[in-house]
Amino acid sequence: MYLGCKVPKFVTPAEAEVHQHWTVETEGRLQLHMESFFKVKKPEEVLSLLDQFGPCGEEELPLDQVFNRVLSRDMVSPEDLPGFVRSTMDGYAVRAKDTFGASEGLPALFAVVGEIKMGENPTGGVGQGQAMRISTGGMLPDGADGVVMVEYCHSLDAETIEVSSAISPLENVIQPGDDIKKGSLVLPKGHRLRPQDLGVLAGLGFGRIPVFRQPTVAIISTGDEIVSVGADLGIGQVRDINRYTLGAFCRANGAIPEFKGICPDSFERLRSLVEEGLEKADAIWLSGGSSVGTRDLTLAVFETFDDFELLVHGISISPGKPTIIARSGGKPLVGLPGHVASALIVAEVFMAPLLARLSGAKETGGIHERHLEARLSRNIESKSGREDYIRVRLRREGGEWLADPIYGKSGLISPLVEGHGMVKVGVNTEGLYEGDPVDVFLFR
Amino acid sequence: MYLGCKVPKFVTPAEAEVHQHWTVETEGRLQLHMESFFKVKKPEEVLSLLDQFGPCGEEELPLDQVFNRVLSRDMVSPEDLPGFVRSTMDGYAVRAKDTFGASEGLPALFAVVGEIKMGENPTGGVGQGQAMRISTGGMLPDGADGVVMVEYCHSLDAETIEVSSAISPLENVIQPGDDIKKGSLVLPKGHRLRPQDLGVLAGLGFGRIPVFRQPTVAIISTGDEIVSVGADLGIGQVRDINRYTLGAFCRANGAIPEFKGICPDSFERLRSLVEEGLEKADAIWLSGGSSVGTRDLTLAVFETFDDFELLVHGISISPGKPTIIARSGGKPLVGLPGHVASALIVAEVFMAPLLARLSGAKETGGIHERHLEARLSRNIESKSGREDYIRVRLRREGGEWLADPIYGKSGLISPLVEGHGMVKVGVNTEGLYEGDPVDVFLFR
Repeated sequence: MYLGCKVPKFVTPAEAEVHQHWTVETEGRLQLHMESFFKVKKPEEVLSLLDQFGPCGEEELPLDQVFNRVLSRDMVSPEDLPGFVRSTMDGYAVRAKDTFGASEGLPALFAVVGEIKMGENPTGGVGQGQAMRISTGGMLPDGADGVVMVEYCHSLDAETIEVSSAISPLENVIQPGDDIKKGSLVLPKGHRLRPQDLGVLAGLGFGRIPVFRQPTVAIISTGDEIVSVGADLGIGQVRDINRYTLGAFCRANGAIPEFKGICPDSFERLRSLVEEGLEKADAIWLSGGSSVGTRDLTLAVFETFDDFELLVHGISISPGKPTIIARSGGKPLVGLPGHVASALIVAEVFMAPLLARLSGAKETGGIHERHLEARLSRNIESKSGREDYIRVRLRREGGEWLADPIYGKSGLISPLVEGHGMVKVGVNTEGLYEGDPVDVFLFR
Repeated sequence: MYLGCKVPKFVTPAEAEVHQHWTVETEGRLQLHMESFFKVKKPEEVLSLLDQFGPCGEEELPLDQVFNRVLSRDMVSPEDLPGFVRSTMDGYAVRAKDTFGASEGLPALFAVVGEIKMGENPTGGVGQGQAMRISTGGMLPDGADGVVMVEYCHSLDAETIEVSSAISPLENVIQPGDDIKKGSLVLPKGHRLRPQDLGVLAGLGFGRIPVFRQPTVAIISTGDEIVSVGADLGIGQVRDINRYTLGAFCRANGAIPEFKGICPDSFERLRSLVEEGLEKADAIWLSGGSSVGTRDLTLAVFETFDDFELLVHGISISPGKPTIIARSGGKPLVGLPGHVASALIVAEVFMAPLLARLSGAKETGGIHERHLEARLSRNIESKSGREDYIRVRLRREGGEWLADPIYGKSGLISPLVEGHGMVKVGVNTEGLYEGDPVDVFLFR
C-alpha cells in the first residue's frame, strides 16, 4: 500500500511539514528521495546487500566468558592432544604380546607390579608378564603398549591377575595427537562457540580467546501514538511494544540492545536521537509509527547523515513491505515497520542475517537455519509477486508434523504468541494446498 | 564397567582410604552404600525421578530483563487489546453503508472532513457521505464503522475523494478485545519468554514480570590429574575441561554456573567444597576424575549430607553410565562422568531436564525438543540392554538429511566438535542399519 500507485496526490499538513524539513535541510536531496521509491527489492537482493556489513571489532576475553561468542581468529592447536599415551579404559596396562592367545578357557597370568596414580608420571615400567593397574585417562607406564579392560581381568591375589582376553598393540589407548594434532585448525574464525567448543579450547590450554565484539543496536520507537509501558494510556494511544520485542530479538541473536527512547513524529527530535545512537551503537533500528507521515520522516532523517546511501526502500514481502535499509559511515540504519508482527518477521528474515554479519559469524543467520518439515493442514492463498510469511501452529499427527495456518485480521499481536513458526509462500506462487510439504521456520 | 560383575575384588590403597573415611565418618551407612550398587536405572526411570525437583523461588523483574526467563505466574490480561476501535489499514474512515454499490465504474463520492491524528482522540465525527483520513493503527471517529483502503480512494481535490470499492461494516478495523480479551490467559506460568511474548506483555502494560529465579549450579571438577587451564601441564596431567563445558551448558539452559574449584581425590577437601556449594547454589554438579577411587569418593561425600537420598547410581546408557544423582535438603547432587564427552551427553539427556525443572519451565528440556529427521548413511552397532548415543554429522543430499556416524576411539574430544548431534539406539536394539530413518538430537 505504502508504495502503491494509487496513493492520493494531496499532501497532508504532517507530510508538508516533513517535506519542508528535508527540502530545506538536506539541500537538494529531493532527487535522491524521489529515486528511493524505486528501491523496492526482492528478499534475495536484500540479503545479498547485507553482505556489505561486517564485524564491529575484536576483543580478547577469558574462556569462561566466551560462550555463544564468535571467534575472531582461527584457533590452531599449540600442542598434541593428548600429550601422552593415555588409557581409555579402567584395567591393566601390559605388553600386548603377552596377552596373545589368552582366553576364558586359557587365561594368561600377570604379576601386578603397581598402580598408575592419576596425574603422576608412572614410576617404574612394565616388563614381560607384568601388569600395572590403570584408570581411564591414566598415563601408560614404560614398556606397556595396551590396556586390558578390567572386565577381562580376575584377581587371584593382591599381586596376581588372570587375563581372559587378548589385546592388540595400542588397544584401549590413545596416543599423543590422536585427538588433536599440534598445528591443526581446531575451530575456525567466525565460529560461534558452543559448550563443547569451550571444552576443546580448555583442553588445549587457551585461557583467553579472541572474539568479535558483540554489535550494539540503538533502538528507537517512533510515533505520536506511542507511550511507554508504565504510562497512563490516553485515548487513541498504544504502548511501546517494539522496544521489548526488538531488544529481546537482539539478545537472542548475540547483540546488545540500547534503547534510545520513544520519539514523536518530529524531524528534529528523531534526528537528534539517531545522531546520538550513531555515536556509540553499531546499528540503528528505528521502528516506525504507523502513520504515513512517520515513514517519510524516517527516510528524511536518515538522508541527513554522512555518506548516506539508501540500499532498500521497501521489500516485496508480506508482512514487512515498508522496510528501509540504509548505510551511513559504514553502519546500517534500518527503518522497520511499526506493527510488531511485521517488525518481527522482518527481523527474523533480514535482521538476524544482519546481526550475524555484524557479529562476524559464519552462520548466515537466515531463517532456514532453524526449520522443520511439515504438511499444511489447510490451503493458503497468497498474492503472486511477493513472498508471504504465514504464521502456523504445529501439531504432531500420524508420525508427521502438521502446520495449521493461523488466520486473523492483520494488526493483531496474539497470533505471534500462538504461533510456533512461519511458512514462506514464494514470490511466484499463488498459494499452497492442503497436504503440501512445507518448511516451517521456527520462532525461538 | 564400573558397575560390572567382574570387578577385581582387591582394594587399592586409594579405595581403602576412601572406605576408611566413610565407614568411620558416616556411622554405619555402609549398608546404604552397598545397596546403592543396585540403583542402576533406565533412562526413562531417571527422567521421572527428576520430576521431584521444582523451581528455586520467584522474583519480579522489569520487562526488559526477562527475555528467556520463565513466568512464575499465569499472566491474565487486565484490559482489552486494542482498547479502542483501530484501523488496520491506511485509508479513509467512513460509514460502510455509504460505500454500498461503489465500483471502479461507479465510484462513490465522499467529503473529506478531517484527518485522524495518531494518538489523539478524533475531533468530530463522520456523517453520511463523509470521510476522514486515517492511518494504520488510528482510532476510528464517531460515526465511522469501517475503513476504505487508500488503494481504492482517488482524491479529486483536497476536500473530495472517489471510492471505487464497497466495504462491509467493520472491514479493516479491529474492535476492543479482538486481539486479547480482558481477563483472558495471555501466557501461562512455566512459559519461557520469547521476544514476541515480551511484546504482548508490553502491549498490555505489564512493566514488571513475575519470573522464577534462575537456578545456580555449583560446579566442581575432581581428579588428581586435573589442573587449571592456565597452569603448566605436568606429566600425566590434563586441563580442566568440564568446568567450561558444563558452565556453558548451564548458561545455554538458563542456569547460572558457579565454579567452586578443582578438587583432588581427597574426602575432606571434596566434602568441604560440596558443603560450600550447597550453602548458596541450588544444585551441585561434580564431574568425576576418571579413577575408580574418585567415583566411590563422590558417593561417600554425598552420603554425609542431611536427608541424603540416593536416586540413581548408574544409568543404562553409553556413554555416561557412571552417573550419580542424589538429593539432600531438596537439592540435587549430581556426580557426572569425568570425560567431557560422556559428561556432555549425560548433560544433554538428563541435566537439561533437571535444569528445566529447577527453572520451573513447562518445557521438559528433553533432547527430543530439538531434533531433525534424517537417514543413517552407515550401519551402527550397539549392545542390547542399554541406550547408545552415537554422535553424527549431518549433510544434505537429494532433498533429505543424511546422518554420518562419527567413529573414533573413546576418550576423544574432537568428535564432539565435529558432530552436529546424536542418534539414540534404543535399549532393545542391537543396532541400526544404513538407510534407517533416525531422529537426530541436535547439539546447540
